[in-house]
Amino acid sequence: MSSKKMPAGFTARPEAPYYAVIFTSQRTPEDAAGYAAAAAQMAALAAQQPGYLGAESAREAGGLGITVSYWRSMEDIAAWRGQLEHAATRDRGRAQWYSHYELRVARVERAYGWDRQDDGAADPGPDYDLVP
Amino acid sequence: MSSKKMPAGFTARPEAPYYAVIFTSQRTPEDAAGYAAAAAQMAALAAQQPGYLGAESAREAGGLGITVSYWRSMEDIAAWRGQLEHAATRDRGRAQWYSHYELRVARVERAYGWDRQDDGAADPGPDYDLVP
Repeated sequence: MSSKKMPAGFTARPEAPYYAVIFTSQRTPEDAAGYAAAAAQMAALAAQQPGYLGAESAREAGGLGITVSYWRSMEDIAAWRGQLEHAATRDRGRAQWYSHYELRVARVERAYGWDRQDDGAADPGPDYDLVP
Repeated sequence: MSSKKMPAGFTARPEAPYYAVIFTSQRTPEDAAGYAAAAAQMAALAAQQPGYLGAESAREAGGLGITVSYWRSMEDIAAWRGQLEHAATRDRGRAQWYSHYELRVARVERAYGWDRQDDGAADPGPDYDLVP
């Protein structure tokens, strides 16, 4: 099913291992328009970086949000971190848009997915043993 | 700062390495009350499991959501997957609440955070080299 089109908001399934940047943040009430414009610009810029595999994002009405971006390697993540426009936008983030954030870099070891249309109510997990 | 109280919605910073279960899902419009009750029950049950370190969650008004739970080991994740009430609730999830989901198990290699009140606008990253 990895060759199928994913529903809106989901990233396709690259072959593991790959890397995830888990960014959990609390937005301030400030500058909604500026934030939205910068977020769209950063998403477009990230998509052009080497090793970018996709991203998924959700934010609550209260401002707590999680964005997970996926990358081929740690080196790709470091290069994106060093990208100048991205660094400048992070500075604006700390000055205006966020009151708190946590960032975690993780190696994706295993992944699976389920779609009602393809799989009915079957558990996609039985052939999947979390402990090697 | 890891000993300080985290803002609402954030998990404290355990020492890496630890493990993350990244669950991205699309809710159906069905059974909002049943889903909310089960989600609260599962959160409480997960918090009692061995190796549970915390969870962060956000869902958009359109139903796309991300929940990341954190665990000490892969074995702890496997045990939670095998917990009977959790398994039964996952079955209800596929039958009623979700149209699609992706689940990834990842090993957190590095983590840092930032808080405006503690750190002003300083970049928490300079002493943090993503490439070992």
